[in-house]
Amino acid sequence: MIDSAILDRFAALLGPKGFVTDVDAIAPWVSDWRGRYHGTAPALLAPASAAEAAAAVALAASTRIPLVPQGGNTSMVGGATPPADGSALILSLRRMNRIRSLSAEDNLAVVEAGVILSDLHDAAAAAGRRFPLSLGAKGSATIGGLVSTNAGGTQVLRFGTMRALVAGVEAVLPDGTLFDGLSALRKDNRGYDLTQLLIGAEGTLGVVTAAALRLVPAATDRAVAWVGLDTPHAALALLRRLEAALPGGIESFELIPADSLDRVLRHIPGTRAPLAGAHRWHALIELVGDDARARMEAALAAALAAGLGADAAVALNQAQEEAFWRLRHSISEAERASGPAAQHDISVPVAAMPDFLLAAATTIEAEFPGTDASGFGHLGDGNVHFHVRAPAGAPADWANGAGKAASARVHDLVTAAGGSISAEHGIGQMKLDELERLADPARLATLRAIKQALDPRGIMNPGKLVRLASEPPRP
Amino acid sequence: MIDSAILDRFAALLGPKGFVTDVDAIAPWVSDWRGRYHGTAPALLAPASAAEAAAAVALAASTRIPLVPQGGNTSMVGGATPPADGSALILSLRRMNRIRSLSAEDNLAVVEAGVILSDLHDAAAAAGRRFPLSLGAKGSATIGGLVSTNAGGTQVLRFGTMRALVAGVEAVLPDGTLFDGLSALRKDNRGYDLTQLLIGAEGTLGVVTAAALRLVPAATDRAVAWVGLDTPHAALALLRRLEAALPGGIESFELIPADSLDRVLRHIPGTRAPLAGAHRWHALIELVGDDARARMEAALAAALAAGLGADAAVALNQAQEEAFWRLRHSISEAERASGPAAQHDISVPVAAMPDFLLAAATTIEAEFPGTDASGFGHLGDGNVHFHVRAPAGAPADWANGAGKAASARVHDLVTAAGGSISAEHGIGQMKLDELERLADPARLATLRAIKQALDPRGIMNPGKLVRLASEPPRP
Repeated sequence: MIDSAILDRFAALLGPKGFVTDVDAIAPWVSDWRGRYHGTAPALLAPASAAEAAAAVALAASTRIPLVPQGGNTSMVGGATPPADGSALILSLRRMNRIRSLSAEDNLAVVEAGVILSDLHDAAAAAGRRFPLSLGAKGSATIGGLVSTNAGGTQVLRFGTMRALVAGVEAVLPDGTLFDGLSALRKDNRGYDLTQLLIGAEGTLGVVTAAALRLVPAATDRAVAWVGLDTPHAALALLRRLEAALPGGIESFELIPADSLDRVLRHIPGTRAPLAGAHRWHALIELVGDDARARMEAALAAALAAGLGADAAVALNQAQEEAFWRLRHSISEAERASGPAAQHDISVPVAAMPDFLLAAATTIEAEFPGTDASGFGHLGDGNVHFHVRAPAGAPADWANGAGKAASARVHDLVTAAGGSISAEHGIGQMKLDELERLADPARLATLRAIKQALDPRGIMNPGKLVRLASEPPRP
Repeated sequence: MIDSAILDRFAALLGPKGFVTDVDAIAPWVSDWRGRYHGTAPALLAPASAAEAAAAVALAASTRIPLVPQGGNTSMVGGATPPADGSALILSLRRMNRIRSLSAEDNLAVVEAGVILSDLHDAAAAAGRRFPLSLGAKGSATIGGLVSTNAGGTQVLRFGTMRALVAGVEAVLPDGTLFDGLSALRKDNRGYDLTQLLIGAEGTLGVVTAAALRLVPAATDRAVAWVGLDTPHAALALLRRLEAALPGGIESFELIPADSLDRVLRHIPGTRAPLAGAHRWHALIELVGDDARARMEAALAAALAAGLGADAAVALNQAQEEAFWRLRHSISEAERASGPAAQHDISVPVAAMPDFLLAAATTIEAEFPGTDASGFGHLGDGNVHFHVRAPAGAPADWANGAGKAASARVHDLVTAAGGSISAEHGIGQMKLDELERLADPARLATLRAIKQALDPRGIMNPGKLVRLASEPPRP
């Protein structure tokens, strides 16, 4: 437990709005949204400014109190859930929610960590620009978390992950000093790139308090299509053909197997299939640019005539576009409604993904009788979410019990294919053991050396991403 | 001096081709190409493979012999020159010059560190692709050095610096372990991005032995234009107008003041001015895409009619295009021929550059009588090479003597403007004192902590980029 005299010092530093101990007020923030990790915290710190955040971290450093940085609490890997023993405080960035500046001419926004992604989308749109990163949790996920996890989403194909969109960050380092890397220089070769180091560090090397983000011109026209396909190989061939026919315009290419679509139609009210017939695989495709609908229709007609795809529909209006996308974004929710499953956010080289998808599903289903496996998601990035559904009658926490063996096997297959056991969700606490089991020792040693050098007291999000030699494994 | 028994061990490890002690053979590699830094080395190590490089670094680590990684030896900041006391060995990567793979379909090449940039250009072209980074030293500069310095060049406007083009690296870490980060995953969130950390680290955290590099489709058509202008403000306005009129196609926009052009015409044989009249500023612009010449002509005609530019010429054929580019690439050579100068590779936010250029030149010329200052280069990146020419009669090494005060003043002005004292050339040994004088203490402390953690023996390119607390300042 944390000494109450120390808690009093945090309270005095941050004031009543910035220091929350009410159990009901804290309750939403001590468990992850998927309900897999449950922690506890004697207080939630909510600084209102970078200076307050720096002061809070400095106090934590001097008193050796661990901090768990948190934004919208939408981590898929328990990355923002405090430990169960109440030994850490939550450091919430949600009160730091100002868009400090947004320049259409410079295509740049300087945004505080607590700004919600969809709010940034709206602000950019009001200025005739876009922030081209989006994902299912956009109504809750915050910029600080998106930067700290190098978030991906559905537009990586064209614009890259968060890493490609961050021009600079402001962050509080583990000793409480404020690092100001916001100056948005297009070129700056003054040594190791600390901004790049903080991107994807999951709050273990400091707390991102603001970021300078790149904007792109607003979309002119947009077209969303749904295509039925026989194999993931046909889907990749279709993607390559469309990229050649519509250069630079394809922003999303999502692969969805029949079982995922069926589950959505069964569990999510108001959804319906875009195509009349049954198909084993589906692709959801978004094109942006002048005359997008006409060009999409022409390119798809030619592709179908060439045998790449069995049937296709282009959404006729915005409502239909949103309905298509809702099918994709509802997969996780439908999955949860339909029973326990072990989920894996994995990547392999793009060209290897179709074979991998089929072979991995076959292997897992054969080795773990009664399971049912498939992957969906960002085919063009070589990244799918590969789910192994529990056998009938399995307990709700199957994924954390018997399902662990299946997960380990999925990760073995990915590693053997030269892939990553975390494509976009990060490591958090969920994948830490697997990272230690499977990572190249040189990589692991370097991660630990960096953590030890920059956070020698181990106060920044301990138990997530990297474990120091002195830290015992989790029970 | 290094003990001869230790040298014998390196010789036994690398064989006669990989261990060079002949003074004449080493001579080209112990001074920098600009002739400003002169070192000495008892031997040059030239491993033929990553395994040999790893073994050499492991031996250096166990015997605590410092290594100076070197590629084409084209550093602008003495970053590859060994120390004068003979205490270090040169680790040349030039024998590792294989293109391991090049896939047009995947838009990816895996290239060893010693491959010369123009050789990669040729190999990509043969496959119908481009590697979209180029610079004056392309006939000598190697991939390892370009990665290790996060090189920029003339296409950053469209494609970004080397950092944006590297999909992964293979590197020998300071303890001699080989880090294999070549697997070109488009998404991989397994902790701190070591590839990003090695890019721009100037060989101080390890030696890059190979890189996976992104390719882009071959250029269809190309147009190169030369525009005469009154002010740098008009140049930036012209750039913004052309970007709007020709979206995505402007690859280069180089600003050249009249004095730089005059110096080229005076000192470089066979050059001639592209425009008949005299102009205070010039822009060299390259557009890539279908019908580039016709579209460039139309866009420039409209821009000139709107008062953005005084006169313009579009190159009629490839020979003329190369002649335009030769003017730009000859500026450094003409500068050297015309007398001593202090050179500064600086960046500020793009929108601030026109004012900065004029104000900085005025300030420097007023405070350092007899000097003559101007900047040229990558206006669209907010990066210029700002040169201060010595007063008449100054000694050849003016830049390292009396000129140092002018350089410090330039760096003060850049820092006050929120800019960088090294936009693309890096820190090397030339700018180390200035980095320590001007950098944010939080940034400096973090650089040192990372260096100490990953290279605790201090054997990787000591005296460059970052100095540990235990290292004395250079005399």
